[in-house]
Amino acid sequence: MPRSENRLLPIEWLSGGRIRLIDQTRLPQDESYLETSDYRDLAAAIREMKVRGAPLIGITAAYALALAAHEGGDAGKDELMSRLRTAAEELRATRPTAVNLAWALERALAVAEAAADPDSAIDALEAEARRIHEAEIAANQRIGANGASLLATGSTLLTHCNTGSLATGGYGTALGIARAAREVGKLERVYVTETRPLLQGARLTTWELQRDGIPFTLVVDSAAGSLLRRGLVQAVVVGADRIAANGDVANKIGTYPLAVLARENGVPFYVAAPISTIDFNTSRGDEIPIEERSPIEVTTLAGVETTMGGATAANPAFDITPSAYVTAIITENGVARAPYEASLAGLLREEAPSRG
Amino acid sequence: MPRSENRLLPIEWLSGGRIRLIDQTRLPQDESYLETSDYRDLAAAIREMKVRGAPLIGITAAYALALAAHEGGDAGKDELMSRLRTAAEELRATRPTAVNLAWALERALAVAEAAADPDSAIDALEAEARRIHEAEIAANQRIGANGASLLATGSTLLTHCNTGSLATGGYGTALGIARAAREVGKLERVYVTETRPLLQGARLTTWELQRDGIPFTLVVDSAAGSLLRRGLVQAVVVGADRIAANGDVANKIGTYPLAVLARENGVPFYVAAPISTIDFNTSRGDEIPIEERSPIEVTTLAGVETTMGGATAANPAFDITPSAYVTAIITENGVARAPYEASLAGLLREEAPSRG
Repeated sequence: MPRSENRLLPIEWLSGGRIRLIDQTRLPQDESYLETSDYRDLAAAIREMKVRGAPLIGITAAYALALAAHEGGDAGKDELMSRLRTAAEELRATRPTAVNLAWALERALAVAEAAADPDSAIDALEAEARRIHEAEIAANQRIGANGASLLATGSTLLTHCNTGSLATGGYGTALGIARAAREVGKLERVYVTETRPLLQGARLTTWELQRDGIPFTLVVDSAAGSLLRRGLVQAVVVGADRIAANGDVANKIGTYPLAVLARENGVPFYVAAPISTIDFNTSRGDEIPIEERSPIEVTTLAGVETTMGGATAANPAFDITPSAYVTAIITENGVARAPYEASLAGLLREEAPSRG
Repeated sequence: MPRSENRLLPIEWLSGGRIRLIDQTRLPQDESYLETSDYRDLAAAIREMKVRGAPLIGITAAYALALAAHEGGDAGKDELMSRLRTAAEELRATRPTAVNLAWALERALAVAEAAADPDSAIDALEAEARRIHEAEIAANQRIGANGASLLATGSTLLTHCNTGSLATGGYGTALGIARAAREVGKLERVYVTETRPLLQGARLTTWELQRDGIPFTLVVDSAAGSLLRRGLVQAVVVGADRIAANGDVANKIGTYPLAVLARENGVPFYVAAPISTIDFNTSRGDEIPIEERSPIEVTTLAGVETTMGGATAANPAFDITPSAYVTAIITENGVARAPYEASLAGLLREEAPSRG
């Protein structure tokens, strides 16, 4: 299946109720795809980080529920809803931190609930998943434009993890800002942190930037401080897995140090995320559950042991950046600044024509 | 050759003018040793980081000059000195940042210069190298005691890179403080950052701590900020490759972020180093040359590619921590605090009985 032009679609709904997604654990060496009609395969793909990135996890969960709906045969509406709720529970349990997952599942379940009969529920779920996917891409493009407007010409950005097409529906949040800034001639270069333990920066962000012809320099995570101190970076842009109502940000481990180092060096620290990443039910960052992943991710790299057998390791997948360090939160509905409780709530009320 | 008890000697002078050193690039999987009577092998070992750590590089350089002296046969004193100066130049060029290298070479050359004839110069060089080695171990033990006295009972430390026996003559600077604190019952646990790109924390520090039975937890470099914010660390202790007269510290890339994050969270940030690491001829940190190593160290890990072929990467091996972030500099002669120009100069004048 050819991609439209150069646009990378990390996930696609194929005719006949199948999903095709790129296996992100095998990039950049292998560009291999997974095709399935079983929602359980998508749950496993989220858990194993074959699909990752908060917005893309939400999109994938919505498609997964559409697949689950197709499974049932001629059962009644109640049985369909019961099956959907079981699938939703299984999907919700895959990753605890990203709020887009729960958000997308709730939207999809509500749509199914509202349908008159099983057949229209199935159709509505498929349509809703596509709508969520398309709305995320459109939201990303507006995030990109909103972010690019904040940058000066000739900017060098520093970004962490992967927030591009591979993390979203197909454009990117923080990396979408880099793309948009490049399009309007403002972007000079992107410093990419490798993002241990799973190397999303080294494997995925570099691969996306190379595809787009955007100059980049890869560094180890701990070199970012030195780049900031030496004045080589004009803005730090990162994504988010969940934003609390007060503007505290849960994002990939290593985000909080970048925020502190940016402020210390007078460099703006921007968080780019769709409104769907803001959790108005969570008042503060410290209420956000932080996923602790397997220590094996720390003690190995691409299957190679980095330390002694049996070494104890901790592997928190995310950290919390208090909103005091965040210069602005860039959404599709506009740019929020402190105090965030008011500004984020204000953005939620904004018109967002292409979000359903 | 058996080691005395459990004491790890990273380098040893063997009878018959040979040097034996542990190949640190192969730890922890292989404990393999290199034996040579050719100083050029030691220069290569420093360049390839088979021996590393500022104090150990100094010791190795002194032994290397003693080997070079042995090479000449029956030449006169002038020819010996000329050969030694050539060897010293080759050794000095291996790594630019650590000042202990230049310091040890100058001491050794001065001792040879002062000798009456070639034979006594050769003997004097060997004796001087041993003296430097023994003095470094003794200095480390005093650094350990001085540092441990600053810690509260039940402390959990965070350290970066490797500053143990493998980085020094055989005890350690920052890791010597952990050892000394453990001996007096003050140390609970050490958080070890893996220290990309070359993983000295994951490979070497964990291995040393395991040998000593000290509990440790390995984390990726970018997780340190989260540990500090969550109050899990009572002090950060690191070594130094060079300390300027004003207290600015050049150390392994990633040190500066730890210092900023420690201060931000009210955690003391201690630098442990022998007086030989202080460069009174360098007034400020920004005058210290920062070695830029091969990008291949960033784009691979243990021989495995971490990114696309041809990806551009930057690989500064060190960063500068301004003295404003340093709570104290712990030396064998005592503990210096701001203002450092006065306190460091004062320590230099202290009595240091076991340093020759």
